[in-house]
Amino acid sequence: MGFTNKIRILKVDLSSGQISREELSEEVSKKFIGGRGAGTYLLNSLLKGDEDVFSEANPLIFATGPLTGTAAPTGGRYMVLCKSPLTGLVACSNSGGHFGAELKRTGTDIVCVVGKAQEPVYLYVDDDKAELRSASHLWGLDTHKTTAILKEEAGAESAKVACIGPAGENLVRYACIINDLHRAAGRSGVGAVMGSKKLKAIVVTGATRPEPSDHDKFMETVKARVKTLQENPVTGQGLPALGTKVLDNIINEHGAYPTRNFQTGVFESTDEVCGEALVEKGYLKKNRGCYACPIKCARVTELPSGNKGEGPEYESGWALGAAAGVKDLIAITEANYQCNLMGLDTISYGTTVACAMELFEKGLIKKDELEGGPALTFGSSEAIVFYAQKTAYRQGFGDKLAEGSLLLAKGYGAEEYSMSVKGQELPAYDPRGVQGQGLSFATSNRGGCHVRGYLIAPEILGIPEKLDPQSTEGKAQWVKIFQDLTAVIDSMGMCLFSSFALGAEDYLAILNAFTGFDYSLDEMMECGERIWNLERALNRRFGMAPGADTLPKRLLKEQMPEGPQKGHTVRLDEMLPEYYELRGWDENGFPKKETLERLGLDA
Amino acid sequence: MGFTNKIRILKVDLSSGQISREELSEEVSKKFIGGRGAGTYLLNSLLKGDEDVFSEANPLIFATGPLTGTAAPTGGRYMVLCKSPLTGLVACSNSGGHFGAELKRTGTDIVCVVGKAQEPVYLYVDDDKAELRSASHLWGLDTHKTTAILKEEAGAESAKVACIGPAGENLVRYACIINDLHRAAGRSGVGAVMGSKKLKAIVVTGATRPEPSDHDKFMETVKARVKTLQENPVTGQGLPALGTKVLDNIINEHGAYPTRNFQTGVFESTDEVCGEALVEKGYLKKNRGCYACPIKCARVTELPSGNKGEGPEYESGWALGAAAGVKDLIAITEANYQCNLMGLDTISYGTTVACAMELFEKGLIKKDELEGGPALTFGSSEAIVFYAQKTAYRQGFGDKLAEGSLLLAKGYGAEEYSMSVKGQELPAYDPRGVQGQGLSFATSNRGGCHVRGYLIAPEILGIPEKLDPQSTEGKAQWVKIFQDLTAVIDSMGMCLFSSFALGAEDYLAILNAFTGFDYSLDEMMECGERIWNLERALNRRFGMAPGADTLPKRLLKEQMPEGPQKGHTVRLDEMLPEYYELRGWDENGFPKKETLERLGLDA
Repeated sequence: MGFTNKIRILKVDLSSGQISREELSEEVSKKFIGGRGAGTYLLNSLLKGDEDVFSEANPLIFATGPLTGTAAPTGGRYMVLCKSPLTGLVACSNSGGHFGAELKRTGTDIVCVVGKAQEPVYLYVDDDKAELRSASHLWGLDTHKTTAILKEEAGAESAKVACIGPAGENLVRYACIINDLHRAAGRSGVGAVMGSKKLKAIVVTGATRPEPSDHDKFMETVKARVKTLQENPVTGQGLPALGTKVLDNIINEHGAYPTRNFQTGVFESTDEVCGEALVEKGYLKKNRGCYACPIKCARVTELPSGNKGEGPEYESGWALGAAAGVKDLIAITEANYQCNLMGLDTISYGTTVACAMELFEKGLIKKDELEGGPALTFGSSEAIVFYAQKTAYRQGFGDKLAEGSLLLAKGYGAEEYSMSVKGQELPAYDPRGVQGQGLSFATSNRGGCHVRGYLIAPEILGIPEKLDPQSTEGKAQWVKIFQDLTAVIDSMGMCLFSSFALGAEDYLAILNAFTGFDYSLDEMMECGERIWNLERALNRRFGMAPGADTLPKRLLKEQMPEGPQKGHTVRLDEMLPEYYELRGWDENGFPKKETLERLGLDA
Repeated sequence: MGFTNKIRILKVDLSSGQISREELSEEVSKKFIGGRGAGTYLLNSLLKGDEDVFSEANPLIFATGPLTGTAAPTGGRYMVLCKSPLTGLVACSNSGGHFGAELKRTGTDIVCVVGKAQEPVYLYVDDDKAELRSASHLWGLDTHKTTAILKEEAGAESAKVACIGPAGENLVRYACIINDLHRAAGRSGVGAVMGSKKLKAIVVTGATRPEPSDHDKFMETVKARVKTLQENPVTGQGLPALGTKVLDNIINEHGAYPTRNFQTGVFESTDEVCGEALVEKGYLKKNRGCYACPIKCARVTELPSGNKGEGPEYESGWALGAAAGVKDLIAITEANYQCNLMGLDTISYGTTVACAMELFEKGLIKKDELEGGPALTFGSSEAIVFYAQKTAYRQGFGDKLAEGSLLLAKGYGAEEYSMSVKGQELPAYDPRGVQGQGLSFATSNRGGCHVRGYLIAPEILGIPEKLDPQSTEGKAQWVKIFQDLTAVIDSMGMCLFSSFALGAEDYLAILNAFTGFDYSLDEMMECGERIWNLERALNRRFGMAPGADTLPKRLLKEQMPEGPQKGHTVRLDEMLPEYYELRGWDENGFPKKETLERLGLDA
């Protein structure tokens, strides 16, 4: 089977056990590209809006893009979509590794799971064969044991596994889905929805190569971009050498490295936990790439204890480190391993612990609530490791941590200490030092997130050009463009990191050479805009409150206390109205009727 | 073969490869009991005094006592003697587990190793068969891998292994010998002497039960003492429930829990690292006993990472914890595992790191000397784990740590920060809060040590009666009696912990029932005195300096800064002259001629 312009869906109803196949029309496929776009289209068609996140009605959509599993550099991505248990809004978590490419090789673009199984099951897909199998023997196991057993059962080394750990089973609101042992569809709690369906895993093995509409043109287009990536200093040198942790020192020196639950933007022990330290201390063994990736930013690590794994990457290392004031790189790395084993999103876990540490140090959480667990003091290397399993199994205080920082803090009447947007915890940039990133955080459809418009690139790294991070001028337009282009890249099935070196025209060339759809640049960017608006329209149906496009009070009202960004807050009010205007949205942050019509959306 | 009144020696010359058997006369056997006493007798006969510790001439003596391997409660001990690489003085390290009892079952009381092998070897003893085998395939391996392979090669589950890890191979001055995976002949660097001989391990398996001179009398005597141990609150309840870590809170509340290299005697985070915390946090899985032990103080533990092992016990937990200001019980436990794998003495390793931390914080050790390793700041959980392997392999700064705190501190012209006596690091009691223990530390023949007269028993625990810990009156006499009785207990092959419940008369009854030697109480205690004096005489030959019976300046001159013992120093000068007088020693601390003659010593 070669390339088809119709997106192929494998539909699995866990309640009835029925498995069927569907296609999206060529028109829809062109309008939404695939991946995140097509998945959002499906969400829109399947959900009224008021469904409970853990109900049978909430679909769980595994979506590849047209470039997933092809020779396109970084073309190994897949996405998981549903209504999020963490935010109640759209969830779309993106992961690399090899699972997505293998799923594509079964001849399926999207797996759409609905309903709920009575007993634990897993979905086995071998080319055009698909079946549900019992997973009773896997329930309760961590992601590595689960993966090992399933690869054994598949009998094929080429079989790829995406699964949940105990965190997903126990409906931790930020449970992730782990594929290929170390890659995560990490954020927004997609693993908890999988757990609620008693779907332990999806195993895929296929032999169907996706074929581009024009093979020679595609290969030529791709080859040139691989060279661009290899020659670029960020994707050709920085990321291969130090991984994303090349950022620790850069962001800390900028004064925007959030420390101790965003109480400051300078971490005094960055030199102990940075990417360079991971090398110097000997924990980094080698780097590893996802499918078809020339960058290879993943870190293969080993600790003095002999424990091995991958990571920590920049965000994880920060969330389990500076966010909680932890400066022990062994503990950070071990906590990262634990999160992967348990199937916990590292960012939300680490920052929820950080929030709990502030509540503990302020006397709101009492020692006896911890039921013998380590004190939640900032800097406790033991606490950051200890509570990972407790959270995944919802034991002791872990049961409260499992709800995420917003519900945790609300429980103590102290919502302001949850450093989250729309219920999802913020990542590793203090926006008081990066105004455009602040707007991007505030307006992200899935809540606090750095991969929905990475303004750090222009505002700190100078990619594609250097912007003044403390200026708010023109940032609305930059954010809009970044958000739309990101939606395109995600939907194509390529990795956002390729955009350190590639521009919109490169993506256009790759997309056209593969699909033959012959998009214009404007048409392609409009796809991104369409997806962004459909997500926002869905969020409105899901009950997103007017005024939700905001930031934690600390970032808007408390001046950064020290460092290069001392004295600054995020001046969101200088950017948000302009952003709404550019988006064609009303003053509550929702698309106007004419905007939806212009984009051909019925939502 | 039943009981013999002649101590049976298996003599192994690694230089020539010859293995032979000898016996000590009945007279010598009675005068020195066995174990530590008989081993010291052998040291005295084999060494002139000025031999280099790593020369062929330094013997390595594995000695059991007459009660080792019998039904006597706690009768599972063996000792390793040599001239110490850490102190240059007598070394006698005592260990439990099952190795000693199995060695006895081969029909041998003492293995005396001399010479050096050209290539790595191990000694295999199966009853009366003994042979040297190549250990080239084991060199470089940790103690657990080594043990597993050797048990496999022995083909008998009953085979017991004592071996060194990389620390012993690399002549770390406080390398230990590990038997039964988790038990250590820990102190004074006996593992380094084993490494210098290229002797990787001793494997023993035997079927010869030691027979008492009067079986019925012995069994009756023993049975009564087992009951005593079981009914005693310390040996029947405290130690079984919490192990030696029952002491953390007791010693800290007394204000004598040495913290941050003995800068204070109160650790603010004791509740996070104490024995109770090990239970509450769920790391303690069960307790385990050595051969013939009704106390079962050993801790079987498991960390959230899945790593398993034994310990930490009180001393190890303190040395890897409060001594270095570390409050992370996971890191403490992991560092303990690492020390066992590497074959490092936990006390000397932890306190040498603590010394390095003080040198680092005082600016004497510079960051760039650490070659990328974690900063040596007090409280660094990462450092305490990280440097264990570095020390064992003598990599980077580990090469300096491998020399012990005294040589380390001297290298920076700051000897006063080595908290050691005669070159061996002090254990977990600040003597500014326990005067008699201070005298015991100062006069110990093997340097800083808590098992050469445990005055903590009367001064803090009230066993056998409560003494005022700040009084110096009568302490010299207490110390002498405790030192002598300890020498007896060690030499018998019983565990010092039995003395929490048993008194001198109990040991006399057990010893007489087994040997038939019909000692009087005075004769038995004189054996202890004889052993103590022979050790001291040997130390003189080894070059011990006059005035070496002292304590680090900090403990003599700096007042305890806080807590219940605030304002105190050790008033050693109020006790030492009286002690020398009672011992029959001169003002330099050496036995007078008439003292040696009275004890029948020719040394």
